[in-house]
Amino acid sequence: MSETICAISTAAGMGAIAIVRVSGDEAINIVSKIFKNCKGDRPLTELQPRRALYGNIMNADGSILDEVVCTTFVAPHSFTGENSVEIACHGSQFIQQSILQLLLENGCRLATPGEFTQRAFTNGKMDLSQAEAVADVIASNSAASHRLAINQMRGGFSRELAKLRQSLLDFVSLIELELDFSEEEVEFADRQRMITIVDEIRYKIKNLADSFKLGNAIKNGIPVAIVGETNVGKSTLLNWLLNEEKAIVSDVHGTTRDVIEDTMMLDGLLFRFIDTAGIRQTNDAVESLGIERTFRKMKEASIVLLTIDSSYVLGEINDFIGTYLPRIKDKQVAVVFNKTDIITSAKRAELENIALPENAVRLFISAKQNQNKQALLDTLLRLAKIDQQEERNVVVTNMRHYEALTKALDAINRVNEGLLANLSGDLLSRDIRDCMHFLGEITGEITNDNVLANIFSKFCIGK
Amino acid sequence: MSETICAISTAAGMGAIAIVRVSGDEAINIVSKIFKNCKGDRPLTELQPRRALYGNIMNADGSILDEVVCTTFVAPHSFTGENSVEIACHGSQFIQQSILQLLLENGCRLATPGEFTQRAFTNGKMDLSQAEAVADVIASNSAASHRLAINQMRGGFSRELAKLRQSLLDFVSLIELELDFSEEEVEFADRQRMITIVDEIRYKIKNLADSFKLGNAIKNGIPVAIVGETNVGKSTLLNWLLNEEKAIVSDVHGTTRDVIEDTMMLDGLLFRFIDTAGIRQTNDAVESLGIERTFRKMKEASIVLLTIDSSYVLGEINDFIGTYLPRIKDKQVAVVFNKTDIITSAKRAELENIALPENAVRLFISAKQNQNKQALLDTLLRLAKIDQQEERNVVVTNMRHYEALTKALDAINRVNEGLLANLSGDLLSRDIRDCMHFLGEITGEITNDNVLANIFSKFCIGK
Repeated sequence: MSETICAISTAAGMGAIAIVRVSGDEAINIVSKIFKNCKGDRPLTELQPRRALYGNIMNADGSILDEVVCTTFVAPHSFTGENSVEIACHGSQFIQQSILQLLLENGCRLATPGEFTQRAFTNGKMDLSQAEAVADVIASNSAASHRLAINQMRGGFSRELAKLRQSLLDFVSLIELELDFSEEEVEFADRQRMITIVDEIRYKIKNLADSFKLGNAIKNGIPVAIVGETNVGKSTLLNWLLNEEKAIVSDVHGTTRDVIEDTMMLDGLLFRFIDTAGIRQTNDAVESLGIERTFRKMKEASIVLLTIDSSYVLGEINDFIGTYLPRIKDKQVAVVFNKTDIITSAKRAELENIALPENAVRLFISAKQNQNKQALLDTLLRLAKIDQQEERNVVVTNMRHYEALTKALDAINRVNEGLLANLSGDLLSRDIRDCMHFLGEITGEITNDNVLANIFSKFCIGK
Repeated sequence: MSETICAISTAAGMGAIAIVRVSGDEAINIVSKIFKNCKGDRPLTELQPRRALYGNIMNADGSILDEVVCTTFVAPHSFTGENSVEIACHGSQFIQQSILQLLLENGCRLATPGEFTQRAFTNGKMDLSQAEAVADVIASNSAASHRLAINQMRGGFSRELAKLRQSLLDFVSLIELELDFSEEEVEFADRQRMITIVDEIRYKIKNLADSFKLGNAIKNGIPVAIVGETNVGKSTLLNWLLNEEKAIVSDVHGTTRDVIEDTMMLDGLLFRFIDTAGIRQTNDAVESLGIERTFRKMKEASIVLLTIDSSYVLGEINDFIGTYLPRIKDKQVAVVFNKTDIITSAKRAELENIALPENAVRLFISAKQNQNKQALLDTLLRLAKIDQQEERNVVVTNMRHYEALTKALDAINRVNEGLLANLSGDLLSRDIRDCMHFLGEITGEITNDNVLANIFSKFCIGK
């Protein structure tokens, strides 16, 4: 018998209405102890499920705590798959806390973070990737991240994984067939068919794993590195960019991310600015280490804003560009010439003549004088769209899923190598099992308490 | 036909669940345009009322915005008395805002603050004093203030007013009877009975008006003035008192009060500290003005902590006590001797011998050395309980009601005087009408748009 849990499921604080959610075998019985309905209405325990019933929550001393509306859900037809009650009360914190208190006194215990969703998973109402998507749905703050989370919650990803699993099972059948007949020394199974199946699986898993870059950008923001020497105005540039937009992103909660970085929402796309140290052109060993660190940071970025002080002498600027651009060929780059307000038109002509590779665009701004900001924003959007132009049905947004997919890809690659090396079926089957194991970790067919605890501890209480 | 309004009714921010509320003639029709239920289920418009229906909110482009549970309420059986729908969605801010947006695009408009409750009042689901209590219920932060608000919301106050109204109508009948027969020069009506009725009415109204002191103390805190000369440690004392408790009161919202003062919750009672300027004993005219201002402030207080620096010379202390105590005979007073850590035991004996009147208790503390704090807290509680010992069924907590009761009391007092002066019935009836008018203002039988706008503008949106 499951313990009956309760929690406030609406946002913290005072509102017109709040919802207290109760779930577990005894949910309806416990709530019926503190709920008194109007004369003539059926008691809660005999009520038709999913029917909103008006009544009062009673204090232990017989006084009325609040007028509420209760809705009952009977197992398995509820979010958790258990008996559940939702109590819609007036949204004062006093009432919310008092109702929880009454529920505790009558046999409930407080739900742990994500416990309602965890129970939905345990009771087979959803797989683990769907359960994780519930938290993403709640935390998503842009149309794009919301769309991915809803799709995952509704099983879009799970269906892809189910198809993969079926292909793997088909492969296993072929191997078993081969093993059955091996004693008769007849190569019965069709190795060519095996290779085809494994190729398809490899392609699909790789595709899903590759989608993580896009998924992560949508969920956590498109990573943008502002790179430049120490005094070229990088922070001024960042503040200038964030200036008007900061209020919008200030209520992005850290639920799904540990560190909140500077982010900016532009045209429905979230940009995340990566903090890179200032660089100084030098032969000093310590400084070189700093530059290497900056390069490592830049690896995370999809877009690099290479910021240059236009007033520097041309040779130095050329050196700088020559040092950096060759090492970020795989990024979308904007070479941002700052401080254009203090240079001559001759100098500007020289800067316009510097040759840039195909992956880089050129921009002239003055952050201090607020010149050409719109051009910079437009450039960011254009570069983001080049970076995200691919259309995908299913996009992986979760680091845990990405890691499992990477391991599954390694395993299926080993199967492929084994096939090409004509290894026997029993040697192949171990790697196939590994591959299925890692995919099973995503859906939660294979899991353990630590993994579950880690996943659900990041949920809010009440979900 | 009423406009259909919508708002988020749960607390602002991210939660597991949020509720979007829709009310108005077209509520169910509008929601049904953006809601798609599961195959086999009846459409929203044909659904049994008060039945929770699972389904999806659809974006304009046909994609799914969220999985939700909708509950319909059909007029007049809803909070507002109109057709209503409650949409329980996932609590991301993106989803909440997107659902509002979809509702606006399909013919709703955003609700103004308190508009749902205002409609409940307009549609006769509750009177004005009950509607006002809805906001008090949501804002109440202690068991005591909650109890008063719930009682008022459930019509406890309204029933008292209805009884008063009936008595006034009885009185009017007697007067009309008298007027009908006056031409026949028969004094038919029983003036003695009139006097009895008016006495009862006066007693009841006065009782209600008097309860405001208690009601206000419970709702806004028992007013405590810390009074003392400038350097006796008043702020140290206040900080010392608030020290441990401040966190508890930090989430008291300013919804029903304009200014948040220092408050402290002690044993379920809320104390509110009134800011009084420091006093200096002087003959200077300007300083005397300051003292008068402090006395005015002290008038608001139920409890006065008269704070004294124990190290002052005895004569000065006696002077101070002699100046203040006679002017606060109607308060509960604690004479708080501070800085007892720096005086001799001989000095303390002298202080213990100072004669105090009945309404004052004596206390020795050292705020700085954290000595005897519990005794001070106990004293505060004891004084509060002396002040609030009376038991009342109905307690007025609302300044608007108090003001209307005061005017009603004036009117009924004029009736009383008129009766005693043997004025004719038509002269009395004007004051009776006034009295009924002022009581009607409380329940909202008599009101105007300005009054309503003022009341409901203090509500939160969504209620």
